Amino acid sequence: MRLVPLGDRVVLKQLVAEETTKSGIVLPGQAQEKPQQAEVVAVGPGGVIDGKEIKMEVAEGDQVIYSKYAGTEVKLDGDEYIIVKQSDILAVVK
Amino acid sequence: MRLVPLGDRVVLKQLVAEETTKSGIVLPGQAQEKPQQAEVVAVGPGGVIDGKEIKMEVAEGDQVIYSKYAGTEVKLDGDEYIIVKQSDILAVVK
Amino acid sequence: MRLVPLGDRVVLKQLVAEETTKSGIVLPGQAQEKPQQAEVVAVGPGGVIDGKEIKMEVAEGDQVIYSKYAGTEVKLDGDEYIIVKQSDILAVVK
Amino acid sequence: MRLVPLGDRVVLKQLVAEETTKSGIVLPGQAQEKPQQAEVVAVGPGGVIDGKEIKMEVAEGDQVIYSKYAGTEVKLDGDEYIIVKQSDILAVVK
Amino acid sequence: MRLVPLGDRVVLKQLVAEETTKSGIVLPGQAQEKPQQAEVVAVGPGGVIDGKEIKMEVAEGDQVIYSKYAGTEVKLDGDEYIIVKQSDILAVVK
Amino acid sequence: MRLVPLGDRVVLKQLVAEETTKSGIVLPGQAQEKPQQAEVVAVGPGGVIDGKEIKMEVAEGDQVIYSKYAGTEVKLDGDEYIIVKQSDILAVVK
Amino acid sequence: MRLVPLGDRVVLKQLVAEETTKSGIVLPGQAQEKPQQAEVVAVGPGGVIDGKEIKMEVAEGDQVIYSKYAGTEVKLDGDEYIIVKQSDILAVVK
Repeated sequence: MRLVPLGDRVVLKQLVAEETTKSGIVLPGQAQEKPQQAEVVAVGPGGVIDGKEIKMEVAEGDQVIYSKYAGTEVKLDGDEYIIVKQSDILAVVK
Repeated sequence: MRLVPLGDRVVLKQLVAEETTKSGIVLPGQAQEKPQQAEVVAVGPGGVIDGKEIKMEVAEGDQVIYSKYAGTEVKLDGDEYIIVKQSDILAVVK
Repeated sequence: MRLVPLGDRVVLKQLVAEETTKSGIVLPGQAQEKPQQAEVVAVGPGGVIDGKEIKMEVAEGDQVIYSKYAGTEVKLDGDEYIIVKQSDILAVVK
Repeated sequence: MRLVPLGDRVVLKQLVAEETTKSGIVLPGQAQEKPQQAEVVAVGPGGVIDGKEIKMEVAEGDQVIYSKYAGTEVKLDGDEYIIVKQSDILAVVK
Repeated sequence: MRLVPLGDRVVLKQLVAEETTKSGIVLPGQAQEKPQQAEVVAVGPGGVIDGKEIKMEVAEGDQVIYSKYAGTEVKLDGDEYIIVKQSDILAVVK
Repeated sequence: MRLVPLGDRVVLKQLVAEETTKSGIVLPGQAQEKPQQAEVVAVGPGGVIDGKEIKMEVAEGDQVIYSKYAGTEVKLDGDEYIIVKQSDILAVVK
Repeated sequence: MRLVPLGDRVVLKQLVAEETTKSGIVLPGQAQEKPQQAEVVAVGPGGVIDGKEIKMEVAEGDQVIYSKYAGTEVKLDGDEYIIVKQSDILAVVK
């Protein structure tokens, strides 16, 4: 199963970073501050959205920074995704 | 009786998942977190909505992810439906 | 006396359902959850509303589902009506 | 002195209904729930308002239903009026 | 010194009404309810404001009714004025 | 160093008025009510802002009245400025 | 790694000013009021954003004043950046 976003939406996947403290304890990703960096896993077709022509500027595999609190978290087959509008993506990391 | 949505509206039906705990107790769907995945049961005609041309992109039978808190719950003949605008549908699950 | 709605407005009349409990007590309509299903009793002419062309899609006699909290309740000659904009009507029941 | 409304505004006058209780006590209009029915006493010229062409649909003498909480109450020569935008008028009573 | 309003703005001056109670005590204007009637003392040039053509409909010397809470109070040379947008003027008193 | 405003923005400088009470005590400007009168020190180029053509109507040296709470206070080289959009300027004082 | 902003976004970097008190104690930047002055480190391509043509007016290396509370703070490789829309930049410091 895979997510096919509609319109100007983009499916993102956060990279869950495991982190080891100085004393060697591994902190799972959830206990840390939510990172705003994610990888693009699917991109909607764009087109006329709400009466305005939107051209998709990001591509599958891009590392992106997205707006805090934006988007909807979705769980599919045990994996977690975030679906955002392209306008909630601030920058690509290159 | 059936629901015929107006404009850019879409009628959804949530699949109520029964779930069995490890000890064998069956939890009814209501006791669980509301899923955001639903099946499209009827699609409005689209057209010019609020001065903007809207083309319907989903079809009856599609499995979709929709925006949390979006839509209106409706009961008809004992069945429960959610009526959303197409723009509240984030992605199709394929 | 009758209500002639302006613009894209629609006059609705809720069907007050009397309901008999198992013990035989009749609960008047007011004590129950407000139903969202109503009958269309008058339809405005549509036309250019707030700079946008609106075509009326519902007709007198239609059974419709309308958005919770939408509209204004009006009493006329002892009868109660709800006046909504057509965009607050979600679906027709057929 | 008279009120000449600007743009898409309409001057309304509520009919203060005196009401006699069963025991014969007369309740002045103020002690009752504010009625939403009023008579049109003056109609603005319409025209291009906020970039949109507005055609006036109500006329002096019409009995109308207007939106609760809409409009501004104005006192002139001891009389009370309500000035609303035409879009706050829901229906004409005929 | 005088105020020259920009765009669709209008400078108003309230008439401070002194009022004598039955017992003969004079209440200064401030102790009373703020009247919504004022005289137009200067009118902006109108033109294209926020992308929309605005034609000025009021003139210096007009007695007008303006929207409660609208506008900005300004003190100049000891006199008090209210600067409103023309759309906050509801009606002219004739 | 100087501030060059972008788009339809205008840089203002408030005149800090020292005031002597009847008993001869000098009150510094900060202890008084913030005046809304200021001098224009720099004017943006205008042009198409947010899809709308904006023509600048104020000029360097103008004494203007601006909207309460509007704008952003900026400190540069020990001087304080307020940067507002031209639409927050209500009137020119002549 | 570097940030490539999308659309009308601009990446800013605040200059963290260390400050020595009269008694010689060095106050780190965080303990001070957040400055609104920053340097432009990357500029988006502009173009049609939300249906409106946006031309980028700032360039890499510009010292700018930006709107308080605007933008999103982003950490990359230990450096902190602020990503704002160009419309949140008030003025260039020259």
